[in-house]
Amino acid sequence: MNIPQQRSVCPLSLTLDMFGDKWSLLILRDAILLDKRRYGEFLGSPENISTNILASRLKQLEHSGFLEKFPDPADGKASLYIPTERGVSLLPLMIEAMRWGKSEFEQAGLPDFVVELLEHGTGDFIHDKNAALANERSALSRSC
Amino acid sequence: MNIPQQRSVCPLSLTLDMFGDKWSLLILRDAILLDKRRYGEFLGSPENISTNILASRLKQLEHSGFLEKFPDPADGKASLYIPTERGVSLLPLMIEAMRWGKSEFEQAGLPDFVVELLEHGTGDFIHDKNAALANERSALSRSC
Repeated sequence: MNIPQQRSVCPLSLTLDMFGDKWSLLILRDAILLDKRRYGEFLGSPENISTNILASRLKQLEHSGFLEKFPDPADGKASLYIPTERGVSLLPLMIEAMRWGKSEFEQAGLPDFVVELLEHGTGDFIHDKNAALANERSALSRSC
Repeated sequence: MNIPQQRSVCPLSLTLDMFGDKWSLLILRDAILLDKRRYGEFLGSPENISTNILASRLKQLEHSGFLEKFPDPADGKASLYIPTERGVSLLPLMIEAMRWGKSEFEQAGLPDFVVELLEHGTGDFIHDKNAALANERSALSRSC
């Protein structure tokens, strides 16, 4: 696992050492909530991430064990990025950040199923998502 | 209010537009949980923030309404930074980031009263903190 420099033992600081940037959690949002898998899909998100930041963050998220990279069975030259359980463990933090953003900015918009997560918690969703992702990773491992 | 560039209407992205950096939430942690008020106190935190980043983040947090700046009655040339209600509204997000960091990193350490917030929620703490901070701001306004 790739561990960035740790500034202190405060767990807020440790989390920010890893996710204190404007992009990493958006890539995990796309992969976990919107089922994006491919470089071009992440690139197409409305926040307009640049190609070099996307490539660097995907590599970082892969090396730190939040995404697992597989060859794309549909295109030998391309890759698929599948969230790991460790990646999915960030969901409660993402939802809390969404809750704050939604309460703070009038223009904030969310798909209905995410509003549901804000209202009823992430427990069942995380359980089902991890089961579905385990199947997806296992199918891709067999197809390699 | 000073609003940074907004990349999309996703509330996660809106939150990261404002707090997607390694330092702003640590300054709010110090002000809200550790009752730090002075430039030198923030500078003395274990993460070793640099003077120019601290000065820039304090200005940003003040301009965006998360901290209110008062002249220090004990030292006419110095300032006190007091969290606003808007600043305190970040506490649930900070606590969720602490929960993730604590579960992820063995070396993570927290004061007992913060562990209490992780276990029993932030509702009462936020209520009492806002009341205490309102008194503090009001006393400083009178002394100016």
